[in-house]
Amino acid sequence: MKIFVDMVMTPGAFEMLREGTAGHQLLLPQTPATSVLAQPDLDPQFASADVAFGQPDPQAIAAAKHLRWIHVSSSGITRYDNPRFWALMAERKILFSNSAGVFYEACAIHVLAFMLAQARNLPLALRTTASSGTPVWDDLRNTSSTLRGETVLILGYGAIGSRLARLLLPFGADVIAYRRRPRGDEGLPVITEKALAATLNRAHHVVNILPDSAETRHFFDAARFSTIQPRAVFYNIGRGTTVDQVALLAALASGQLKAAWLDVTDPEPLPEDHPLRKEPNCFLTPHIAGGHLDEAKSLVRHFLQNLDRFVRNEPLVDRVM
Amino acid sequence: MKIFVDMVMTPGAFEMLREGTAGHQLLLPQTPATSVLAQPDLDPQFASADVAFGQPDPQAIAAAKHLRWIHVSSSGITRYDNPRFWALMAERKILFSNSAGVFYEACAIHVLAFMLAQARNLPLALRTTASSGTPVWDDLRNTSSTLRGETVLILGYGAIGSRLARLLLPFGADVIAYRRRPRGDEGLPVITEKALAATLNRAHHVVNILPDSAETRHFFDAARFSTIQPRAVFYNIGRGTTVDQVALLAALASGQLKAAWLDVTDPEPLPEDHPLRKEPNCFLTPHIAGGHLDEAKSLVRHFLQNLDRFVRNEPLVDRVM
Repeated sequence: MKIFVDMVMTPGAFEMLREGTAGHQLLLPQTPATSVLAQPDLDPQFASADVAFGQPDPQAIAAAKHLRWIHVSSSGITRYDNPRFWALMAERKILFSNSAGVFYEACAIHVLAFMLAQARNLPLALRTTASSGTPVWDDLRNTSSTLRGETVLILGYGAIGSRLARLLLPFGADVIAYRRRPRGDEGLPVITEKALAATLNRAHHVVNILPDSAETRHFFDAARFSTIQPRAVFYNIGRGTTVDQVALLAALASGQLKAAWLDVTDPEPLPEDHPLRKEPNCFLTPHIAGGHLDEAKSLVRHFLQNLDRFVRNEPLVDRVM
Repeated sequence: MKIFVDMVMTPGAFEMLREGTAGHQLLLPQTPATSVLAQPDLDPQFASADVAFGQPDPQAIAAAKHLRWIHVSSSGITRYDNPRFWALMAERKILFSNSAGVFYEACAIHVLAFMLAQARNLPLALRTTASSGTPVWDDLRNTSSTLRGETVLILGYGAIGSRLARLLLPFGADVIAYRRRPRGDEGLPVITEKALAATLNRAHHVVNILPDSAETRHFFDAARFSTIQPRAVFYNIGRGTTVDQVALLAALASGQLKAAWLDVTDPEPLPEDHPLRKEPNCFLTPHIAGGHLDEAKSLVRHFLQNLDRFVRNEPLVDRVM
């Protein structure tokens, strides 16, 4: 088979890819993408590929007459997620899988790091030189929490959300998931649209892991923020487009939200002078939640496992369609 | 009974104490302590107490002829921990309990917050404005970890340590405890002095929860730090006196330790111009690890539960002697 790979990777990961694809032909574009989410230039080799691994141009699929499987090197699939693309894939019987399995563990732990940094007041505690017994110190101690008994609402309950719920289990938090279509096997209370406002109204922590789509664009707008319990904390680890940042800023400025911890924004990175960067209770990391040691190797390993399944005609892992 | 209480508390906690001790007489000093660890002035009422709750002066015990039980409002018992005091307590058959049960949960979560902030590179990630694909960003992602497969050595394996081990379970870290006298019921590998150097040498995270005593004073000195695996991370949540801070600074400055996260120091707070405050990889919080919402109420609740046991002649919780 001809395997088109447009993902940038470390030499060690490339070595692993070479070894794992021995017997197949690798098609490598001249200009690989700079990151898993960047869109590389169209490469003429793509037209002859049987399999594509990386971020192949959705516009070029029609010209790739032999293509049978696309494995994208990200969890997010925004650039592919439109009816025209899915219709073409269905018509051509092309399989489509993503790399969710590579990132969900690090993403869930990144949110938990945010939640615990907030619970333990780290942003202020790491700055202060207050002595014990002073009002600042008393306040630091007395506003610290252990998450016990606090309500955590997780919006978008896929691999990341369920892993986060599992990690939160020993803390004794009251974890609730919001999901458009509950499956019944979630192992925790699941709500849908109907109960969303009431649940936001009693949540202490609102964890947004919604994917980007036409339906989720500005899902968190001024109206939605106003239904969240005052002094709740908002986290976004999904996609920046699901949040109306003007409304978020207003909710932070008014004190309605106690804090926001965002790994994703719109655009990325936020301009240096963006007002969210100046908001003292807004904490930003630059879309690194999924990052972990030798990520490229994890992506290649995940692809190779799926390649093995593809060759054997077994069901793919992380298959989207 | 006459119950001497020299702990400072919120009105709500005091109300709870009043209600819970109805039928007994509360002896309240004019000048209560400013914090659970501060030593209040000697109060003449102490001499007539049957029970003491707070931080009663160890020098005054001899004069308190009716005293049968001391419940201290802290986990640490340094000011009481000497042979002369314990001998007097034994001779007088005075029970002694502490408030470990109130603080261990928050302390364990505070260390975990430190560990996850380090694992997810939060100190740098929250400051940078780097775009995806830049070397800073690549480095942030690729040096982030999930703790999976990393070795965590916990020194001092009491309530905090065992809780931390429990919280770390779902992360897939390799957790090992160091304990002077293993009991065999720890549920994880326990090492003693013999294996300490070899274990430090393969640890990625060294969590110091040792109490203060003559034996633990400067337990972490230059020799000990030199046996830790290069680029390990050091955490101290026990007592500042267990660490030779000059040696710690040298280990950070040389890069032998990747970072240190300290909730306790010697003295507290560190002077504003202390070199550890200037060390970029040293992260300090001001002895707040045990802090949580309405701590005073937790302390009172814990004392009242023990008072109930004391009155019924049942074994005390968190009894030290």
